[in-house]
Formats: sequence, structure tokens, C-alpha cells
Amino acid sequence: MQHKQMFNPVARELEMVEGNLKQNINSGVDVLNQASMHLIKAGGKRLRPAFVLLAARFFMDSLEEIIPMATALELTHLATLVHDDVIDNSTLRRGTYTVKHQWGNRVSINAGNYIFARALALSASYNRKDILEVLADASMRICEGEIYQMMSSYNVNVGLKNYLRRIERKTALLISVSCKLGAMLGNAPQEQVRALELYGYYLGMAFQVTDDILDFVADEEVLGKPTGSDVKQGVITLPAIYALHHSPYKIELKRLLASPIICAENSDQILEIILDSDGIEYAYFITEHFARKARKQLDYLPDRPVKETLYEIADFISARDY
Amino acid sequence: MQHKQMFNPVARELEMVEGNLKQNINSGVDVLNQASMHLIKAGGKRLRPAFVLLAARFFMDSLEEIIPMATALELTHLATLVHDDVIDNSTLRRGTYTVKHQWGNRVSINAGNYIFARALALSASYNRKDILEVLADASMRICEGEIYQMMSSYNVNVGLKNYLRRIERKTALLISVSCKLGAMLGNAPQEQVRALELYGYYLGMAFQVTDDILDFVADEEVLGKPTGSDVKQGVITLPAIYALHHSPYKIELKRLLASPIICAENSDQILEIILDSDGIEYAYFITEHFARKARKQLDYLPDRPVKETLYEIADFISARDY
Repeated sequence: MQHKQMFNPVARELEMVEGNLKQNINSGVDVLNQASMHLIKAGGKRLRPAFVLLAARFFMDSLEEIIPMATALELTHLATLVHDDVIDNSTLRRGTYTVKHQWGNRVSINAGNYIFARALALSASYNRKDILEVLADASMRICEGEIYQMMSSYNVNVGLKNYLRRIERKTALLISVSCKLGAMLGNAPQEQVRALELYGYYLGMAFQVTDDILDFVADEEVLGKPTGSDVKQGVITLPAIYALHHSPYKIELKRLLASPIICAENSDQILEIILDSDGIEYAYFITEHFARKARKQLDYLPDRPVKETLYEIADFISARDY
Repeated sequence: MQHKQMFNPVARELEMVEGNLKQNINSGVDVLNQASMHLIKAGGKRLRPAFVLLAARFFMDSLEEIIPMATALELTHLATLVHDDVIDNSTLRRGTYTVKHQWGNRVSINAGNYIFARALALSASYNRKDILEVLADASMRICEGEIYQMMSSYNVNVGLKNYLRRIERKTALLISVSCKLGAMLGNAPQEQVRALELYGYYLGMAFQVTDDILDFVADEEVLGKPTGSDVKQGVITLPAIYALHHSPYKIELKRLLASPIICAENSDQILEIILDSDGIEYAYFITEHFARKARKQLDYLPDRPVKETLYEIADFISARDY
């Protein structure tokens, strides 16, 4: 199964989001439009819009009025990516050059701010204070997460708890908010809003752990960036944390990961130690744990065809042939 | 007269804004709070909150409910400043080290985003779509202005029109929006909202031209940064534009200003040519022009004591002993 198939029940609406994303890039400045369009066209799975739509689908037949919200969530996500590329000084994302690489810091920072302001305008169109408060709160917590990420780089003493907090802010939060906002716009009862919020949270956690596994095991071509790029940049994800605690070479690994220079010079050896540990296996176990928790939340939701889709997504995320 | 005196009619409320600014910096991450607090404590004239309050004063006796909006406008302004310092790689602002200098890019970009999300949360509390649309639109146009600024650096062919467009986005827009939002929250009739919006626009234009004059003529101590720092960085403001068109040494000036390296090496000579032209005098003339247009808008507003204050502010901005 491909991502695309997973989202079949909202495929038509996702195409509308795609068009809406492009329509919303209409500043008076060409270079800002070019940079933003580059970012949009670089692709991505449009997970966040998909979850807004799928969550709303429980409560609504026509999703037309959900399109602006779904678009706003993707724009919010893209705004964080373009800022991240400035912070990390990245050259490549999803196999194409970053906005930062092609246009520099000024254009990247302003493209991010412009796109986020667009997301805000789209969200404001619902005239619902509760929607905007959820979005503002999520934005603040994402910023906090960026700082946790910084404080954990090359820190060989980080444990599972620190890792989970980081991926919560990095990924789970916005997927959770996507599900929540879809339910809110569908005027779902409060406990069903909460169930979808938690479904999104656990699914987002599972998704990010899987993503961190793929960074170690997938081909460069699939990733659009070199295999092992996280650990090469001192980002210590779950397989590395496991190896740091349980590998027979953990003392050596600690030494190699603790400094940017030593880390960069020994990336092959670092990858070998991590892959030889049970770190990948352990990470798959954690993914399955979160996918199970996501599935469980679906008990609280009404029986609609879309429920089956959400079960399938949880299964897909934790499948090892991902 | 000092800035502080100008804002006497809302002095008590401005103190509440000051407290509110600090209260709103309560993220879960110490370094984010420290950086944001540093930014707030570095001071500034709080022009934007003052104009929100003064505009609302026409229509309301108690301004308590205006405090969150006034706070949001200052936070929006501060968010742009902290991002600007990343873009310009600045070390000093208002005589103290920048967030960028003390904490680096990641903290600065995220502090800006965090602060803007806070502004959004405060603005959302009014539950008014029209307010949020004004804020979102202003944010987008400020981003556009940043790009205009970039495209004009070291461009010796820029004229008055380009300059006016740049300062509109850089300063006039947010002051205009401050006046507009104050009037909107005071539920002013539409033509009075418009008059205050335009008052803020013209006043903001006058203010920025004056600021650009001061960059050439004020002491380093007053500015909190070296005299002539704009032109040293290739930012071509009104006095320079005048000199580029009318100085007897305009050909030489063009040559000196066209390249970053030549510009940096010859800053004394550049300043001398500009100061010897009538560029400063011309800029004062433009300031007076905008201050006059600002005053004229006050004709459309009801007679309240605060009207006198807005006249005084327009006079003050265009006074040569500023």
C-alpha cells in the first residue's frame, strides 16, 4: 500500500487542497512566490491536510468547507520546514535544493513568515476563536520543541523520555492538531474531538519513530538525502539511544557521538554500531506500541467507512515493509 | 517634549501593556523565555501599543479590553525585529546585544515565531474575524517589504517611489494597523476607522523618514548603533537618494555605494557627500509633508481630548529638534 491509497477516501479533496496551496501563494513579490512555490512543489505526503479531512469525514459528507483548514495546516507545516532549513543550513530536502540554498536566509525566513500568515488568514476565515487558539498554541509548542532539539544535539546522555518529547513537538503535535481541528469543524462531541486528537498524537509518534528508523535503513534515493543524516548531524534518535544504552560498543559510540568533529569523521563506524545493536528492532517495537494506542482511540468514534481507513493507516505505519 | 510625554493620555495603560508583555513570555523552555525577555527589556518606544490605545481612546473611556491587542501589536513588531537581526547578522540593537548575537539563529528564529504565535493568541481572544484578517494581511505585507528592502540594497538607481514603498512596509504599515485596530475595537464608524488608519499611515511614514535622518545626524549614543549604519550596509535611504540625484559628487557617490566592499571602505567619504548635499533638508521636507497629511485626517474624527494629543504627535515627529 502507498500513502496515496491510504488517503483514497479524501483523494478528491486532497487535490483541491493542492490547488488551494498554490492559489494562496500570491504575494506582490515574485521571489517570495517563487520560493514558496518551490517549497510546495517539492512535495511531501500532505499528511496534515489528509488527517484534517479524514477526521472531519466522520461528521460530514461534504468536506468543501474543510479545504481552507486543511490547506492552512500544510502551510503551517511548510513554514516550519523552510525555517528549519535556515537553522540547519540544509542544502537538500526531499531530494531537491532547499529554499535556503537557492534564495538565502532573508527570502527563506520571510517566505516562512508569509506562508504562516497565509495559514492564519485561512484559519481566521472560520470566525472561530477555539480554532485559532488551537493553532496558536500548537505553534508555540512547536517552537519549544525546536529548542529541545537543539539542547539534545550531540548529547549522548539523552534517554527515551527526551526523545519522545522531541518527536512529539516535531511531528505528533501538528498531526494531532490536524485531527482535532477536523473534528472541531465537524462539530463533533467533545469526547470524540479528544479521541481524534489522541489518535493523531499516537499516530504522529508512530510515524516519526518510523521516519527515524528509515533514516538508518532506507536508500538515499528513497530518503532524498544521505542515509544516516540525522546521526551525522548529532541528532540522536531512538535506534541511537538504544545502542548508547545496550550496544557492546556503547562506550566507543558515546565517544564518537559526543563531538561534531569526531562524529562527522566516523559516521560509517557509528552507523555500523547502531545497526548491529537491536536499536532498529526496538524502535519498531515502539512504533507498534504507538500504533496500538492510536487504534484504541478509534473505539470512541462512530462507525463510519472512514474508521476503517484510520485503522488501516495505523497498521500501515507500523508495518515493517513500510 | 519626550516620547513618554506624548503618550501621557494612555500612560497608565502603557504600563499595563509593559506588564502584559512580560506575562506573555511563559514558554516551557528557559532559553526561549530568556531570549524573549531580553528582547522586551531592550526597550523601544512602544509606539504601536500607544497608537492602538490612543485610537481606541476616541471611542472608549476604559481601555482595559484594549490591552491584549496593544500587547499583540508590540509582540508582532518584536517578532519582526528578532528575525531581522538574523537576516542582517546584527550584533547590536538599541545599544544592547541582539538575541541573534547572544543565542544564535535557532533561538532567534524560534523566539520570533513563538512571540508571533503569542500575538496571534492574544488577537484571537477578541473572537473577531475582521481583526485577525487585518493582522494576517499586515504580516504578509511586512514580509513583502523585507524582500523589497533586499532588492534595493546597494542599488544606486532606486528612487523616491522605491524608498516610500520600503518604509511603508517597514514602519508605516504596522503603525497604521495599530490605529486601525484600536478604532475597530472601539467600534468606530467605518470612515473614522479609515481616518485613523490613514493618520497612522502618514505618521508612520513621517516617523521612518525622521528615523532615517537621525541615522545620519544623531550621535552613536542616541542611536545605540554607529552613525550612518544604514548606508554602511548598503541601505539607501532618502538623504542618500537625494544626494545620488543632486549632489555635485553624484557620480563618485554612485561608484562608492554600488558595491559592498567599496562602500565599507569609504564610509566616511560617503557620509560627507550625503551630509554636504541638501539630502537631510529634503528629507525634513518630506517628513513635514507626511505629518501635514496625518494632521488632516484628524478632521474626520470626533472632538475628544485625545485629538489634541494626535496633533501634538504629528507636530513632534516633524519638528527638527526631534
